Amino acid sequence: MARFIDIQTHDVRFPTSRTLDGSDAMNPDPDYSAAYVRLLTDAGDGIEGHGFVFTIGRGNDVQVAALRALEDHVLGRDVEATLADLGGMWRELVHDSQLRWLGPEKGIMHMAIGAVVNALWDLRAKREGTPLWRLLASLSPEEIVDLVDFRYLTDALTRDEALDILRASEAGRAGREARLLADGYPAYTTTPGWLGYDDDKLARLCREAVAEGFGQIKLKVGADLADDVRRLALARDVCGPDIRIAVDANQRWDVADAIRWVEALRPFDLAWVEEPTSPDDVVGHAAIAEAIAPIPVATGEHAQNRVVFKQLLQTRGASVLQLDATRVAGVNENVAILLLAAKFGVRVCPHAGGVGLCEAVQHLAMFDFVAVSGTVEDRMIEFVDHLHEHFVTPVDVRDGRYFAPAAPGAGTEMVAASLGEYAHG
Amino acid sequence: MARFIDIQTHDVRFPTSRTLDGSDAMNPDPDYSAAYVRLLTDAGDGIEGHGFVFTIGRGNDVQVAALRALEDHVLGRDVEATLADLGGMWRELVHDSQLRWLGPEKGIMHMAIGAVVNALWDLRAKREGTPLWRLLASLSPEEIVDLVDFRYLTDALTRDEALDILRASEAGRAGREARLLADGYPAYTTTPGWLGYDDDKLARLCREAVAEGFGQIKLKVGADLADDVRRLALARDVCGPDIRIAVDANQRWDVADAIRWVEALRPFDLAWVEEPTSPDDVVGHAAIAEAIAPIPVATGEHAQNRVVFKQLLQTRGASVLQLDATRVAGVNENVAILLLAAKFGVRVCPHAGGVGLCEAVQHLAMFDFVAVSGTVEDRMIEFVDHLHEHFVTPVDVRDGRYFAPAAPGAGTEMVAASLGEYAHG
Repeated sequence: MARFIDIQTHDVRFPTSRTLDGSDAMNPDPDYSAAYVRLLTDAGDGIEGHGFVFTIGRGNDVQVAALRALEDHVLGRDVEATLADLGGMWRELVHDSQLRWLGPEKGIMHMAIGAVVNALWDLRAKREGTPLWRLLASLSPEEIVDLVDFRYLTDALTRDEALDILRASEAGRAGREARLLADGYPAYTTTPGWLGYDDDKLARLCREAVAEGFGQIKLKVGADLADDVRRLALARDVCGPDIRIAVDANQRWDVADAIRWVEALRPFDLAWVEEPTSPDDVVGHAAIAEAIAPIPVATGEHAQNRVVFKQLLQTRGASVLQLDATRVAGVNENVAILLLAAKFGVRVCPHAGGVGLCEAVQHLAMFDFVAVSGTVEDRMIEFVDHLHEHFVTPVDVRDGRYFAPAAPGAGTEMVAASLGEYAHG
Repeated sequence: MARFIDIQTHDVRFPTSRTLDGSDAMNPDPDYSAAYVRLLTDAGDGIEGHGFVFTIGRGNDVQVAALRALEDHVLGRDVEATLADLGGMWRELVHDSQLRWLGPEKGIMHMAIGAVVNALWDLRAKREGTPLWRLLASLSPEEIVDLVDFRYLTDALTRDEALDILRASEAGRAGREARLLADGYPAYTTTPGWLGYDDDKLARLCREAVAEGFGQIKLKVGADLADDVRRLALARDVCGPDIRIAVDANQRWDVADAIRWVEALRPFDLAWVEEPTSPDDVVGHAAIAEAIAPIPVATGEHAQNRVVFKQLLQTRGASVLQLDATRVAGVNENVAILLLAAKFGVRVCPHAGGVGLCEAVQHLAMFDFVAVSGTVEDRMIEFVDHLHEHFVTPVDVRDGRYFAPAAPGAGTEMVAASLGEYAHG
């Protein structure tokens, strides 16, 4: 019987602040980083499970310390039994009552659990010789709902309702998988829109995005209204009327600010307004959504857990859900969020970028298409063309689409040399 | 000019799980702990600033790592200038964009900021030779609002509205301070009600609570309905009809469970229902509050920041706010929460217990009485008779009341011998 014999952690930081890649109204100088975990077994097959939390620099060491705090839950455990019941493992980790106090279910400890959960999925997918999206999409409806903790969700989504959603889409799985393999999954790009770029670079990157086949771009806004108007006019001019342009305020505004600012940007035909205010402010999002309708409100990359997503849906505070692969407690909680979104008929357009977020989150969107919502209509995965070279199986994005990964695993494995070269401290 | 020259941290854990003190439906075996920080200066006056985050055991080391991550914001800084602008210091800490990513404004990193902020207030109060409650109550309305970051609050409370509240209560400050010094501040006790205690111990502790002059006790519920009914009947029988009895579910229920369970407990004349569900579920709290009215819903000890408190008030999801001294980002954020509560006319009954929470939070309640809400009507500070001996200035609770501390500082300084004796690892 194989057991988990070691957890290795790495504090990896890329000096992205030097080029202002990733700069926005709240994050002027991010150093894209990963608190990275490797799960080792004595199976003798050379297979490891890899996962990480994406951070933007300082404090990545604290995030690594949180990974280490989970060691006792993993070491010595039976590999097969653990991987066969990842719903049970998720509950054990999230409901460790002493660790739970540090959130509960939010922030550093919750994200650390997410990284370990994702590493377990990476290990399982590699052992089964299949990419994570296909592994998830091959599970039965019952197996999928067993991954989900419905605690705090039942006023919006019960286990039976989730089963109904999954059963309804079961018949079409094979056809959608074929479509996914042939056509890929739509992407949009944030590469042109970072706040630290000058107008020439913005225009050039917009032209490139259109040429590369993207149907939507996204611009960072929120620092200065006059600048935003100028940059949006420029982008609209370069892209033409047929390319969708979303804006992202990165939590910069209070409720009234958001409403006023978006009014001023309304002439530019916004695809959505992202993170208008605090990610914790469900009531505020609902007020903004009502005021700026029909422009959609998008949020989710900083939504701490399934309970916040539930409320954003209940209040109609968000009509585009941007789940993130490493903000919540891993694959299992994101499955819960996909099921919630399907229940409410709201589209999911995952957050990506950072370090490895594109590689990780594509599996969730593809699983959703094949086995949950069954549609890609108006859905896109964010794409930012940064740092992919550090991953063993970098994304394959062409013609404005993500093409489905075929390699076994969850996409979360970083190149060993990068772990060494960018090791911090 | 004096500067900050060192940050010392301590991982302190008390083995409370051995006696089931502190046991509830979600936390069966807490080991009350403190991630403790000491700020040292070169002023030569021997005065240090002490603060801590209360945790319940595992992960306290991660919380300590988060304290260390704040070192660069403190070391080398001018002591006088820093203490003269603690609103500015709060903003610098909370809006460090890289560290903010780890929350934002929630969980381990936010609580670490709270401990450092509280340690700064402890230092300032000691240097001014006054207890924190009186220091805060001696500030002008303008100085008080300068402590508060109104970001994300202005749809519910503006700076001008906060100023109006503070100015309106300014005239009565001296009279209320005299009343506070003479009569103390009302307390209620949770000592009888831990879930791990048997019926004999529950009855004995209820009798003692009444004899000691407490007007309200609190029982933990939520694990087993039949047990809860039996224990409530016993407590009501022992206490008689004139003692208020609150119940605390510690987040155990989904929305429908909470409503059903509280219906069954309604005959026992509940003073409030505390933490019925996830502390993140504003919408759920509002639904429960409406269904169980007129029984009040109480929550706040796990509410992550001022944005969640704001929404609980906007939606009327809570009519008793239980702020905690070490869950949010320290004194400044709790001042914001007190001002929000005053705006909405909702009472604050602080959470306490744990390690040092009584010592710390009493200052906030007393400041509120003297300078903000101006009332103690239906307000009480929680009291649990645990671990006070480890503090340099333990609370003075007699006749069911907290008597105002006279010693300089924020009450947060632990006895040096305890820091050593209960050092972990």
